[in-house]
Amino acid sequence: MKSKLIVTFVLLTTCLAAFSQEKHQASVAEKGLLKVVVMYPYAEGKTFNMEYYETKHMPMVAGFLGANLVKYTIEKGLASGMPNQPLPFMAIGTFYIKSLSEYQAAIGPHRDAIRADFANYTNISPVILVSEVVK
Amino acid sequence: MKSKLIVTFVLLTTCLAAFSQEKHQASVAEKGLLKVVVMYPYAEGKTFNMEYYETKHMPMVAGFLGANLVKYTIEKGLASGMPNQPLPFMAIGTFYIKSLSEYQAAIGPHRDAIRADFANYTNISPVILVSEVVK
Repeated sequence: MKSKLIVTFVLLTTCLAAFSQEKHQASVAEKGLLKVVVMYPYAEGKTFNMEYYETKHMPMVAGFLGANLVKYTIEKGLASGMPNQPLPFMAIGTFYIKSLSEYQAAIGPHRDAIRADFANYTNISPVILVSEVVK
Repeated sequence: MKSKLIVTFVLLTTCLAAFSQEKHQASVAEKGLLKVVVMYPYAEGKTFNMEYYETKHMPMVAGFLGANLVKYTIEKGLASGMPNQPLPFMAIGTFYIKSLSEYQAAIGPHRDAIRADFANYTNISPVILVSEVVK
């Protein structure tokens, strides 16, 4: 009976410790990562096919990046956060990476294929920001 | 002995199930959330105090948002992702929220205090995008 209690206690403690570790990792894992943020500015006459971007373009680019890619995200611009201002960006795609030089080496050989694919979902020239996750 | 094995098995199964649930949540919890993305465009003569922004301004605004705020992030602009282009943004702060109307109701009474604090860390007028997390 005593040994059963000990086993139960050890398992519960391990379980709780593992859990808190997992939560901790989920919240801080991004700090220090680099982001390549591809922003599509809105203007009159500009178009953006989110379905193609989500199901074809972004998975293609992500596929070139290998283990350097931690995750990628896609967001759809809805409105300006300032009253009476135009929408700043129609869409933003973001790659969270560990190394910029590895990113550039991986993208380089595919640059023409990536640019050629733009016409399949947009007529916007994107603005690209490289940033570092502070928090 | 048999009951000890059963207890051990149940605990391990629960632990594993809880773990996979946690991982699942960490990866998909953001989809469908709204983002308020506050972007500080770079230009000559513009300044930005990241330390004040991270330790004072963002925690103050986050404190107004209550349970509607899922998380907030801060990134520091490093470079343009296009060769020979200027840095697009010096910094970006992002609030991940569940409801835009709740966000606006929470920010409204504090708008003057928030704007007055700008001068403590920057001379840039931010661009603000409201977007939806697609992926």
